[in-house]
Amino acid sequence: MNLPVSSSTPFGGDYSPEQWPQDVWKEDYRLFDTARIDTVTLGVFTWAQTQPAEELYDFTVLDGIVAEAEAHGRRICLATGTGAHPAWMARAHPEVTRTDFEGRRHRYGQRHNSCPSSPVFRRLSAEVAGRIAERYADRPAVIAWHVGNEYGGACYCERCTAGFRGWLRERYGTLEALNTAWNTAFWSHTFYDWDEIEAPSALTEHWRGPDHTAFQGITLDYLRFMSDAMLANFRDEKAAIRRFSAGTPVTTNFMGMYRPLDYHRWAPHLDFASWDNYPPEDGSPAWMGLSHDLMRGLKDGQPFWLMEQAPTTTACRDVNPVKRPGVMRLWSWQAVAHGADAVLYFQMRASRGASEKYFGAVINHAGRDDTRVFREVASLGAELERFGGVALGARTPARTALLFDWDSWWALEMSDGPSRLVRYQQVVLGYYRALWEAGVDVDVVPVTADLSGYDVVVAPVLHMLKGDLAARLEAVARRGGSVLATYLSGRVDESDNAFLADVPGPLAPLMGVRVDEWDARGPDFANPVRLGEGPQGLVAEARLLFELVQPRGAEVIGTYQADFYAGTPAVTRNSFGAGHGWYVAAGLDQAGVGWVVRQVLDTHGIAGRYPGLPGLETAARVAPDGTRLLFLLNHAAEPVEVPAEAGGLDLLTGERIEPGRPFGLDAYGVRVLREDD
Amino acid sequence: MNLPVSSSTPFGGDYSPEQWPQDVWKEDYRLFDTARIDTVTLGVFTWAQTQPAEELYDFTVLDGIVAEAEAHGRRICLATGTGAHPAWMARAHPEVTRTDFEGRRHRYGQRHNSCPSSPVFRRLSAEVAGRIAERYADRPAVIAWHVGNEYGGACYCERCTAGFRGWLRERYGTLEALNTAWNTAFWSHTFYDWDEIEAPSALTEHWRGPDHTAFQGITLDYLRFMSDAMLANFRDEKAAIRRFSAGTPVTTNFMGMYRPLDYHRWAPHLDFASWDNYPPEDGSPAWMGLSHDLMRGLKDGQPFWLMEQAPTTTACRDVNPVKRPGVMRLWSWQAVAHGADAVLYFQMRASRGASEKYFGAVINHAGRDDTRVFREVASLGAELERFGGVALGARTPARTALLFDWDSWWALEMSDGPSRLVRYQQVVLGYYRALWEAGVDVDVVPVTADLSGYDVVVAPVLHMLKGDLAARLEAVARRGGSVLATYLSGRVDESDNAFLADVPGPLAPLMGVRVDEWDARGPDFANPVRLGEGPQGLVAEARLLFELVQPRGAEVIGTYQADFYAGTPAVTRNSFGAGHGWYVAAGLDQAGVGWVVRQVLDTHGIAGRYPGLPGLETAARVAPDGTRLLFLLNHAAEPVEVPAEAGGLDLLTGERIEPGRPFGLDAYGVRVLREDD
Amino acid sequence: MNLPVSSSTPFGGDYSPEQWPQDVWKEDYRLFDTARIDTVTLGVFTWAQTQPAEELYDFTVLDGIVAEAEAHGRRICLATGTGAHPAWMARAHPEVTRTDFEGRRHRYGQRHNSCPSSPVFRRLSAEVAGRIAERYADRPAVIAWHVGNEYGGACYCERCTAGFRGWLRERYGTLEALNTAWNTAFWSHTFYDWDEIEAPSALTEHWRGPDHTAFQGITLDYLRFMSDAMLANFRDEKAAIRRFSAGTPVTTNFMGMYRPLDYHRWAPHLDFASWDNYPPEDGSPAWMGLSHDLMRGLKDGQPFWLMEQAPTTTACRDVNPVKRPGVMRLWSWQAVAHGADAVLYFQMRASRGASEKYFGAVINHAGRDDTRVFREVASLGAELERFGGVALGARTPARTALLFDWDSWWALEMSDGPSRLVRYQQVVLGYYRALWEAGVDVDVVPVTADLSGYDVVVAPVLHMLKGDLAARLEAVARRGGSVLATYLSGRVDESDNAFLADVPGPLAPLMGVRVDEWDARGPDFANPVRLGEGPQGLVAEARLLFELVQPRGAEVIGTYQADFYAGTPAVTRNSFGAGHGWYVAAGLDQAGVGWVVRQVLDTHGIAGRYPGLPGLETAARVAPDGTRLLFLLNHAAEPVEVPAEAGGLDLLTGERIEPGRPFGLDAYGVRVLREDD
Repeated sequence: MNLPVSSSTPFGGDYSPEQWPQDVWKEDYRLFDTARIDTVTLGVFTWAQTQPAEELYDFTVLDGIVAEAEAHGRRICLATGTGAHPAWMARAHPEVTRTDFEGRRHRYGQRHNSCPSSPVFRRLSAEVAGRIAERYADRPAVIAWHVGNEYGGACYCERCTAGFRGWLRERYGTLEALNTAWNTAFWSHTFYDWDEIEAPSALTEHWRGPDHTAFQGITLDYLRFMSDAMLANFRDEKAAIRRFSAGTPVTTNFMGMYRPLDYHRWAPHLDFASWDNYPPEDGSPAWMGLSHDLMRGLKDGQPFWLMEQAPTTTACRDVNPVKRPGVMRLWSWQAVAHGADAVLYFQMRASRGASEKYFGAVINHAGRDDTRVFREVASLGAELERFGGVALGARTPARTALLFDWDSWWALEMSDGPSRLVRYQQVVLGYYRALWEAGVDVDVVPVTADLSGYDVVVAPVLHMLKGDLAARLEAVARRGGSVLATYLSGRVDESDNAFLADVPGPLAPLMGVRVDEWDARGPDFANPVRLGEGPQGLVAEARLLFELVQPRGAEVIGTYQADFYAGTPAVTRNSFGAGHGWYVAAGLDQAGVGWVVRQVLDTHGIAGRYPGLPGLETAARVAPDGTRLLFLLNHAAEPVEVPAEAGGLDLLTGERIEPGRPFGLDAYGVRVLREDD
Repeated sequence: MNLPVSSSTPFGGDYSPEQWPQDVWKEDYRLFDTARIDTVTLGVFTWAQTQPAEELYDFTVLDGIVAEAEAHGRRICLATGTGAHPAWMARAHPEVTRTDFEGRRHRYGQRHNSCPSSPVFRRLSAEVAGRIAERYADRPAVIAWHVGNEYGGACYCERCTAGFRGWLRERYGTLEALNTAWNTAFWSHTFYDWDEIEAPSALTEHWRGPDHTAFQGITLDYLRFMSDAMLANFRDEKAAIRRFSAGTPVTTNFMGMYRPLDYHRWAPHLDFASWDNYPPEDGSPAWMGLSHDLMRGLKDGQPFWLMEQAPTTTACRDVNPVKRPGVMRLWSWQAVAHGADAVLYFQMRASRGASEKYFGAVINHAGRDDTRVFREVASLGAELERFGGVALGARTPARTALLFDWDSWWALEMSDGPSRLVRYQQVVLGYYRALWEAGVDVDVVPVTADLSGYDVVVAPVLHMLKGDLAARLEAVARRGGSVLATYLSGRVDESDNAFLADVPGPLAPLMGVRVDEWDARGPDFANPVRLGEGPQGLVAEARLLFELVQPRGAEVIGTYQADFYAGTPAVTRNSFGAGHGWYVAAGLDQAGVGWVVRQVLDTHGIAGRYPGLPGLETAARVAPDGTRLLFLLNHAAEPVEVPAEAGGLDLLTGERIEPGRPFGLDAYGVRVLREDD
Repeated sequence: MNLPVSSSTPFGGDYSPEQWPQDVWKEDYRLFDTARIDTVTLGVFTWAQTQPAEELYDFTVLDGIVAEAEAHGRRICLATGTGAHPAWMARAHPEVTRTDFEGRRHRYGQRHNSCPSSPVFRRLSAEVAGRIAERYADRPAVIAWHVGNEYGGACYCERCTAGFRGWLRERYGTLEALNTAWNTAFWSHTFYDWDEIEAPSALTEHWRGPDHTAFQGITLDYLRFMSDAMLANFRDEKAAIRRFSAGTPVTTNFMGMYRPLDYHRWAPHLDFASWDNYPPEDGSPAWMGLSHDLMRGLKDGQPFWLMEQAPTTTACRDVNPVKRPGVMRLWSWQAVAHGADAVLYFQMRASRGASEKYFGAVINHAGRDDTRVFREVASLGAELERFGGVALGARTPARTALLFDWDSWWALEMSDGPSRLVRYQQVVLGYYRALWEAGVDVDVVPVTADLSGYDVVVAPVLHMLKGDLAARLEAVARRGGSVLATYLSGRVDESDNAFLADVPGPLAPLMGVRVDEWDARGPDFANPVRLGEGPQGLVAEARLLFELVQPRGAEVIGTYQADFYAGTPAVTRNSFGAGHGWYVAAGLDQAGVGWVVRQVLDTHGIAGRYPGLPGLETAARVAPDGTRLLFLLNHAAEPVEVPAEAGGLDLLTGERIEPGRPFGLDAYGVRVLREDD
C-alpha cells in the first residue's frame, strides 16, 4: 500500500473540536475556509471520550466531529486515539500504566502512559482501533488512519521483563548462545535460567542513567525489544483496522531522529511514513534536511507526510521563541522539497488549558483571523492550492547515500569508553551538513539498503557493523564508488562484542588502515589537522577523539599536528577496486569535514548548484510523470540573487526563469521551478 | 485578636535548654541579663520529650524550663513543639510520615516529617497542643503561642490523595465542572469517578520535577489543597489551644516569600503574623524589604514579629559567611522599620551536635560573653531597651501598593511556555527594588486587598487574574490613580485556562493594548528598548520575554530597537478615566524598570526622601498615638551625610536633627527619628 | 603474617581466561613469556562459574586455569570471586541484593551487588571462599589470596538496619548514651526503643544526597557500621580460607583514598595491603604519591602490592585518554618507589564485551604483540626482571608524618556549615603536595599511629579529634618537633559534637590561639594573606574559609590583607615545649601552603634533594639488608640534568653515578640508584 490518495498537497493538521462547544466548530470551519485548510487530523486524544468505560463505547461526539468535517468537504486523517489511555482504565487495571527506568510503577497521568506488554492495554487498544475503523471505514473523507501518537515511553515492569525473556528465547534459542552474546563470563553474570534475566534498569545493570550499563549487550537487546514491543502495539491496531478497512493507508507519526525507537524496524509495517518536525531551538535547516531525508529513506524514497509542525512557537521548551516572519512558510516548503506530500500543523486551535495551551496554533485563544500567524498560514494555504498536486509521489534523484543506524547510535552512546562526549547524532549531522552545504541531494538510508545505485556512501561512526555490510561497502568502492567512514567505526558486532581484529574490523581492508590506539580528550583540547597540501589544503581542528592510524595501503590525506602522535595520519584514502575508501580518524571540525566531503564529491563530479551560498538550499524531486522540480530555499535573513542554472517556471509566482539569467529570492524566500525538459 | 501585649519590643528568641544540663541554664540567664534578652521562645522541638509515648505525657523538663524563665522575669513565646514528630510515633503509626513527590513513603527522620492528612498526626498534634495550653495558659509570662514551626513539606500519600478528592468535590461539586476546569478533554483525561484522580507527582502528571506537569490545573489545585491541608493542621492546634487559652494570641512562623504555602490564605487564621528572615547570600536589603512588607500585608498592615534571624552565620547553605560588623543591628532595625514589633533570634545557644551546630548563636559553644557576636547582640539589646515601646502597633503610611499573588506565582512557574526563565519572585523583586530605590513606602498586598486608598498599584506578572480584580484595578485608574502591569499578565483564569480573548485579557481595556505574539529568548539575548525621548529618556535592555504590542488607545512610551519587531511598542501608557494604565511588555533590566516606575511615581508626586542614595533606605511608621517615626538605614559600607528633610529626635542617640541641616550615618548605620509635629 | 613470599617483584595482573576459548590461553602464555609476566590474579569474577547452583560446585574451568598457570610456571594470586554474586542467587534469595540510599531494593545486576548483612550472602561467600582455599591451598604457585574485589556499595535494607541497631547497642550500651551522643534533643529525636532507629538515607535523615543529613552523628555511625559490615564479609572469607590455608597471606584490593571504607579499621585484618591505582584524569603524581603513602601507612610502613593499574586507558570515565609513551613505566616505578612490592595490571587481555571492553589491556582485541602498549609492558617486564628482588620488604625512612583520618573526612564533608566547598581530600592533598614538591619522604598515617619518631607532623583539617591525640601531638612539640594544623580542626569529638570550648578545642593549648568566628566565601573571593616579611615573605591568596584568630601566646606568621578582619592573623606559630605548633587559619593557595610547609621543614633541616625541580620526584627505600635505594622519577615531558647528591649504581641501566657529577633523566625518565654506603 502507498500514500493516501489525494489530488493536491493535504494542508491542515491536528484538530480537537472535542475540547470546544459546538458553536466554536462553525467558526473553525469559517477560518479553515479562509486559510484553505483541506485536511484535518481528528481524534488523536479521544479514547476517554469514545470509550467512557470498559464495556461502553460512545461515538456521539466523534460522529459529530466527523460529520462536521465531511459537511465542510474536508479530508480526514482519523486517529485511533490510543496515545493516552483513559483514567478509568488505570484504575480498573493498574497494569496498563508504565514502570519507569527507576523501577517505579506510575499511576494515572500524562500521555505515553501505557505499558506496551500489558495484555489489557493490547486488547483494549486493538479493540478501540477496530471499533473506529468499523464505524468510519466507509466514509470517503477518511483518507488515512493515524495509529497512536508519537510512540515512546519505555517500560520496565514485570510483564515487560517477561516479554523480554520471551523475545530473547526467540533471538538466541539457548542460554549458552545468550551467555556468549552478552559475554556474561565478565562480572560473574552467567545465566542458568531464563527467569534470572532482568530488565536492565537503575535497579539492575545501570548507574548514572540509561546510557551507563554494566552490560551493553543486555541494554542493547532491551532497546530492541522495547522498540519491537511498541511496534507490536502499532501492529495490533493496524490489524484491527485492516479487518474493516482494506484500502485506506495506515501510519503513525514518527519523530525524526528519535533514539528510543528503531524506525527502520518499524517502517515495513507502515503504509506510509509521517513525522512531526520540531527542530531544536536553533532551527538548523541541515538538521531538518537530515530528518526529512531519514524519514523519506524509511520506505525506499517514498514520499512521507509532514504530520505536525508548529505554526509558530512550541511550548514544551525552557525558552520558546516565535518563528520569524516567513520562516514557517520556508520550512513548510523545505519539507515538500525533501519529500513531504502533505503539510500539516499541530494545531488548529490553541487549547484553553493544560500543558500545551501556549503551543502555537493556527487560531489563537482570541479566535482571530488577523494575527500574523493566521495570515501566514492562510497565505501558504493559497500558495499550496495554486501549487496543486504536481509534486505528489515525486522522488529525489540522489547519487549520494548517508547511512543511519539506530544500533550504532545505541551502541556508541552507551559505550563505556573511549568518550562519552562523542554523540552519534552530532557526528552524523556534521557529515550531513557538509553534504547539505555542498548542495547535494542525499538519501539517508538504513545499513540494509541497496547501495548499488550510489556513487558516494557516507557512513559516519558506524560503531556496530552487522551482516554483510562490509562486503556491500566494498562493492561500492570496487565498482568505482567512494565510501567515507570515520573513527569509532567497525568496532563491534551486532551483540556489541568487539571484533577480535585490528580496528576498524571488517572495514579494515576497504580502508587500508590499522588502528591500535585512540586518544580521547575533553572539549577544550584541539589537535590541528593538516588536510591536503598547498592552497587547496586546510588546517582544521580535531576534538574529542583521535585514533592513531597506521596506513596499510592507504595514502595519507591529513595529519595530526600536535601531541605525541604529531605527523601521523588523521585522514586517509585507500584505493580499492576502481574506487576508494576514505577514513577520517579524528573528530574534525565542520570545516574539516566539509573539506573531506568535497574531495569525495569532486571525485565523482557531484556538485551542488550554488555551493558558494550555504544558506541557499536546493533540492530536486522528479514526479511520477517525469516532471523535474527544483526547490530553492533561502534560509538567510537577507535576499539573494543568483543566475539560473536551468530554465523553468516558478510554480509559486508563475514567473519564468531563464537559464543563466539572474533571479532573486527574498529573505527566507522560496521558489519552486518546474524545470524545462 | 491582635499582637501579644508588651510594653517594649520583645528581644530574644529560640531557646532550647532541654538540650543542656541545668547548670548551663543558670549561665544562660546571666548572659541574657547582660544582653537584655527579655523574651524566649520555648519548646519548639520538644514533642518527643513532653510525650515520650502515646499514652504518656511528661512535662517535667518543660515545667522546669518555663519556671526558670518565669523566675528570671522573661516573657515566653510557647511552642506546641509539633514541627517534628517523635520517633515512637513513626514506628507505631507509619502513616504519620510523609510520602514525597517521587512517591516514596519516608520513615522516621528529619523535621517537617508529618503527613498533614494523617488522622493520627492530626489527633495527636491537636492533643499535645491542647495539653500544653491547658498546662501553661494561666502563666502570665506566656504572651504568645507558637504553633508548629516553619510549616512546609508536601505529602503525596494515599491519605492526601483521598483528601485531595474531598477538597475537589467541595470546590467543584460535579465531575463535569472539574473536567471543564482542568480541560481534561486534552490528552484523554476525562474523569468519570472521583477516585480516578491522583495526586500530581513524579508518578502521575509530572516530569523533570514539580514545575513540569501535563495538567497545570491539577497541580495548581494540589498546591492549594496542600496549603489548606497544612493550614488545617495549624487550625487543629489553634482550636485545641483556644479551649484553654481565650486571650493569648497564636501565631506560627512564616518564611516570607515561601512558594509552597499561600500565606494569604493562612493569614486570617493567625492572630498575628511572624516570620523568619534568612535572606539569600547576597543579603539584598530590597529582598528583605519586600519580604517584610509582604508579611506586614498579611493582616492589613498590622505589625508582625520577626520570629527568627541569625545572630551571625547560617549553617544550611553551601557557603555560610558571617554577618559583617553592624549588619545584624542594621537588619534588625530594618525589620522594625518595616513593621516588626519584636526582634528575635534563632538561637540563644549553639547546639552541640546535629545539623545546626554551626548555625550562629548568641552564645557560642565556649559559652562566652566576649565574642563579637555576643557584644553586638548585647549592644542591640541595650539600644532596644532605650527605644522602648514607641513603635509598637505603628502603621506604614503607604500610597503605593504592590500586588503579590501565590496563584500567579504558581501558574507562571509551572507553565509550559513561553519561558521557564521568567521567575515570579525575580520580576516582582525588580519592581519592588525600583520602588525601594526611589525611597517609597510600599504595601505589599494580596489581589483581594482594598485598593481604594492607593495612588499607585504595581502588579508585576499577574499571570492569573481572578474575581473582580480587573474591575478594581480599573477603579484605581478611573479615580486618577496609576496601575502598572507587565508582560505575562491577564493570561489565565483561576483554573489556569487561557482567557478566550486578546491578551492581556481582562486587563486589555485598562491597558489599551492588544498582544497576539510573544517572543522568548535565552538569557544571552538582549533587545534594547528606548524609553521616553531626549535627555529624560533611556535605552534599557530587555531580556527573556518580549510581547509584541498593538496599541488600542495606549500611547507608546518605549519601543524595541532590534529584531523583526524593532520600532514596535515595548512600554505603553493608556489614559483611563482620570488615571492611567501602564503596560511593560518586555523583561526590562533594573534601569528600565526603575525609569518606568519613577515616571509613574512622578505623576503622583510621590518621591523618596533621598532618591540619589539608593543604599540609604528610609521607612516611615506612624504609632497609634500619632507619633511619626522615620527610620534611616545606611546599607552601604561607607558613612553618608545628608540634609535632614524634617526635624526630629534620634531615639537611638537622643540627638536632635534640625530640618535642612546635614547629619550623618555611619557605615551600616541606623537612625530612628521621632519627627517633629 | 606478612607479604607473599617472592624473590622478585611480581609482575602481571588480572587475568580472565574463563572469558575465552582454550586456544586463546596458549597464545596468552606465549605473550606473557614475551612480556616477562610472572604473576596472574585469577578468578576475580568466577563465582557464577565455580558455583552454578546453590548445591553445586564446579571447578572444572578454574582447575584448568590454575593448571595452565602452573604449567607455565606463573605465580598465582587467587581470588575468591565474591566481588559479584551469581544471578541464580539473587533469584533464589532476593535478600542478597543491595538496597540503595534511595531505599530501592535492587534486583540482579552489576557488581558490588551484595547486601553485607544478608545471612545468605555471608554463608555462601564464606563457603565458596573455603571451598577454593580447600582445593588450591596446597598448590605452591598460589602465593596470595585475593578476597572479594574493591569492596564497596553501601546497603540500607532492613537487615542492615537491624545490624546497625545491634552495632549501636554494642557501641553505646544504653539508649541514654546514644541519645546523648547523637544530641537527639535537637529536632525531637529522642529514641525510646532501639527499633525506632532507622538507617540514615534519602527516606529518613537525608536530603540532597549522602552528605546532607539532619543528624551527623547518626550518619557517621552508619558509615562506621557499614565499613565494619563489609569488613565482616572480608573476615568471613578470610576465616574460611584460614581453615585450609595457614600460611598464605590474604589481602583484598583497596582503592586508595576511598571515602566509604575506613581502611585504617580494615588494615589489621589484612595480611598485607594492596590497592588499585586509577588516578584522576590529570594523573597528578602527588595524588598518586599520597595514595601510595596512605596504603603503605596502613600496616606501619610495610610494603604493599600495586594490585591493579591500567596499561593505558581506562573506560569508565567520560573521557578516557591514553597514557602517553613512558608514563605507564614511570607510574609503575613511582609505586615501587613509594613501597609497592608488586606491579600488577588490570587487565591481561581486553574483554570482548560489556562495560570494560574498552578498558586498556596488555593484549588488545587483535591479540597483538606489536602494539605500543604491549611493547611498553614487555619492556618494563624486562626491566623489573633485571631489577630483581632488591627492593622487596624495603622501608621508607621518613621524618615527616601526615595524618589521615576517615572520621574527619566524613565529619567535615557531611557538616552543615561553615562551607560545603572545603573538601577533605583536596586540603590534605594540598599539604601533601607541598611536602612532595619539597622532595620529602612522608609517612601518611592514622591518628592512632605512634608519632614519637617524627620531627614534623602535618595534620590538615583534623575536624574530629579523638582519644589522646591532642596529648600525643603536644608530646611531639614538647620534645622539639613541629605540629602543623589548619582551620576547621579540633572542632568535634568522636560523636561529632562540638567541643564546648574555644576553637580549636583540644588543640588550642598547642596552637596558642583562640577562634570565635570563621568566615566562608564562594570560590571567586580571595583574601590575600601576607606570609612572613621582606624578601623571604610571600603574599598568597586564601579562599573558601577564613578563621578569625586571636593569638593566645602564638606569634603571628601571616595576616589577612582584606575585609573587616584585615590585619588579623591567618597563620601563627606557637612555642610549645622545645617545639612548635603551627596554625593555618585560612584556605591558602598552593604557594601559601608550600611556603608554610617549607618554614616548618627548615626548622628541622629537612630538605628535599632537588627542591627547585618540582617535577622531579625522589623517594628513598631501605631494604631489609640495609641497602639504600633512591628512586628518581621525572614527571616532566622534558628531560632534566641534575648533579648527583650521592654516588650510586643505577640498577636499571647499570650506569654508575658519581657524587656531584651531573646526570640526566629522559622525559618521564626513571632511575633507581643503589646508593653507595
